[in-house]
Amino acid sequence: MNIYTYLEKVRNNRPLVHHLTNWVTIYDCANITRAFGALPVMAHAKEEAGDMARIASALVLNIGTLTRDMIESMILAATVANKKGIPVILDAVGVGATQFRDEMTMLLIKQVRIDVIKGNGSEIARLAGFKAQTKGVESGNVEGNLLDVAKALASDKSCISVITGKHDIVSNGKNSIIIKNGDPMMGSIVGTGCMAASVIGAFCAVAENKDYLTTSACALSCFGIAGEIAAKQSSGPGSFKNNFYDCVYNLNKSIIDNMQQVEMLM
Amino acid sequence: MNIYTYLEKVRNNRPLVHHLTNWVTIYDCANITRAFGALPVMAHAKEEAGDMARIASALVLNIGTLTRDMIESMILAATVANKKGIPVILDAVGVGATQFRDEMTMLLIKQVRIDVIKGNGSEIARLAGFKAQTKGVESGNVEGNLLDVAKALASDKSCISVITGKHDIVSNGKNSIIIKNGDPMMGSIVGTGCMAASVIGAFCAVAENKDYLTTSACALSCFGIAGEIAAKQSSGPGSFKNNFYDCVYNLNKSIIDNMQQVEMLM
Amino acid sequence: MNIYTYLEKVRNNRPLVHHLTNWVTIYDCANITRAFGALPVMAHAKEEAGDMARIASALVLNIGTLTRDMIESMILAATVANKKGIPVILDAVGVGATQFRDEMTMLLIKQVRIDVIKGNGSEIARLAGFKAQTKGVESGNVEGNLLDVAKALASDKSCISVITGKHDIVSNGKNSIIIKNGDPMMGSIVGTGCMAASVIGAFCAVAENKDYLTTSACALSCFGIAGEIAAKQSSGPGSFKNNFYDCVYNLNKSIIDNMQQVEMLM
Repeated sequence: MNIYTYLEKVRNNRPLVHHLTNWVTIYDCANITRAFGALPVMAHAKEEAGDMARIASALVLNIGTLTRDMIESMILAATVANKKGIPVILDAVGVGATQFRDEMTMLLIKQVRIDVIKGNGSEIARLAGFKAQTKGVESGNVEGNLLDVAKALASDKSCISVITGKHDIVSNGKNSIIIKNGDPMMGSIVGTGCMAASVIGAFCAVAENKDYLTTSACALSCFGIAGEIAAKQSSGPGSFKNNFYDCVYNLNKSIIDNMQQVEMLM
Repeated sequence: MNIYTYLEKVRNNRPLVHHLTNWVTIYDCANITRAFGALPVMAHAKEEAGDMARIASALVLNIGTLTRDMIESMILAATVANKKGIPVILDAVGVGATQFRDEMTMLLIKQVRIDVIKGNGSEIARLAGFKAQTKGVESGNVEGNLLDVAKALASDKSCISVITGKHDIVSNGKNSIIIKNGDPMMGSIVGTGCMAASVIGAFCAVAENKDYLTTSACALSCFGIAGEIAAKQSSGPGSFKNNFYDCVYNLNKSIIDNMQQVEMLM
Repeated sequence: MNIYTYLEKVRNNRPLVHHLTNWVTIYDCANITRAFGALPVMAHAKEEAGDMARIASALVLNIGTLTRDMIESMILAATVANKKGIPVILDAVGVGATQFRDEMTMLLIKQVRIDVIKGNGSEIARLAGFKAQTKGVESGNVEGNLLDVAKALASDKSCISVITGKHDIVSNGKNSIIIKNGDPMMGSIVGTGCMAASVIGAFCAVAENKDYLTTSACALSCFGIAGEIAAKQSSGPGSFKNNFYDCVYNLNKSIIDNMQQVEMLM
């Protein structure tokens, strides 16, 4: 898998990645999109959510601080994105923590086509129908093997599923990819999960033949590599976060080729 | 006062701290909660604010960018928190600046039980019925002695009152604690006040016998110590903020024992 | 032009700068206002937006994540600001990207007096009636010369127009100022445009005889100088952002006198 090719394509094409996201990590979703070389935009008003999707190359939905209004805007934007054929990524933040989150997410998945559903173990398990508990927005206990969970959701919803964690899993139901890049330090700051979804959006925006399995895996590998390098240079979450942005910005072919740890399970 | 014991308990128990907060500092409220070892969550929709409180160990309310809708959600969440017996912390940001803020805060205090009310000098003075002016969200002139102000509010509302400033004051009306940790550099960035409320939430979540007087003081001492160390390493608000996060993350028993400046007025 | 005089005045007067802004960069708008020595406040509820404007010295409106409700609050706040005679700055983020943004901005400009309209090339061109395309919130192609665009908008709306870019342009329609300070690194992070509007707000708050042409230019020169110094010290957007805040905080007379690149076109 030539990961760098996709990073280069993001940097050259500068795709516009439209977000309807949460109010906690919205800045970092935008800023990481920019750091990877793409252009972020956030427009959640019902009156323009669809129009902004029309000029975008990917749409990222994140339910971290969802409201009924926001879900309506998401449906409007995703409907346009579906028609236009651009990838729609859903970060299922906090699914399993409240009934409202579960219901709204199910509504979203029913009403529009989601190309990539991303979450932590318990979020994806919940959506796949496994028993799981989410502690706020933190992964809790999951019954069963995470690879099976990822496959089950992907098959059930005919989408790409992404589980982030110590190792990330990307699956289309049949084929799966394990990404072993990353560092525990990434969990010491708020928002790495949300940022990962934005990066997946940027990479899927430049996918060939809608191969979102590959682009999601490439995005997560690059993201994790930057995290690994940054962690080595950092003495806590403050310095880590800055170093992380610098490392993303300075990723290049040789770094990626040397550090990528991507395992295909075909 | 064995301050470190409480920090250790936060780190070990990882309490879920639910926030209904403002849109300016929401990320830093979450991130500082995480840096101290607790788990933040933010969920302001009426449909889930209460459900999220049900699985939380503390609730932090911050009216920095309040709206009528947000106040309704706060009442829903706090009602659940009250029933469950978890601490409710109110950061009275900007009280005294507009009539709307004063009215909404009074409504909140009337409708639900607030365990800890925190603010700067003029915010707490206003709530305690003293003459005071707040300049936006900045403390203005206060008529009278701040210790008296803190005691008056605590007695009046049967709660713990917290005044942050050069020295922080925590009072239950009868007994008070002065925390002399901290550094003026903490005022050079936006959000330290809001972050302090989140940290108080995390510490109160692990209180013994609902002794929120002690846990609020411990939280502020740790917070101030990290600020002091970070200030020495910094050349401006940018580097200060990063160093502050790193220092919080690296706080340990010997640092706290050596640096704590906590004075009990019993 | 004695730029430092205005910076000193901001630091001494600590004007309250009221913002109704977007949810992406709201923290940085507040934080940069503070770093320059002024006091930020954000209050968007209809019930208090006007009251907060009443105690403020400048009002900054930013439509980055506008909604119909927010526009209503902006009109309420700006109406008070107009009556009080304090400067109103509009950052026309994303104008030209959707019809809704265009319409709401035109409505705003019609209903209240805007003293300074700021945007990138395509945003200002759109408002001035030139052909232009905005890619999300990023400047796109503009038909015609940017100086002409700036002059045209200023004349048409009897305001100060500001176009940020490689070189910044400030115009009152007749007289214009080119600010050549700044560094491309400033575009590597999200929010520098929004932050610039906040800084213009802080400087216009201390203008003499409502000379917002001068204060806007001074604000942008200081802002750009800090960016230049920070860029030299940084290895990516993470370190750049911190260094930028530190540099703003440490700006002094000799730095500004040595580095200012301001060209008057009278």
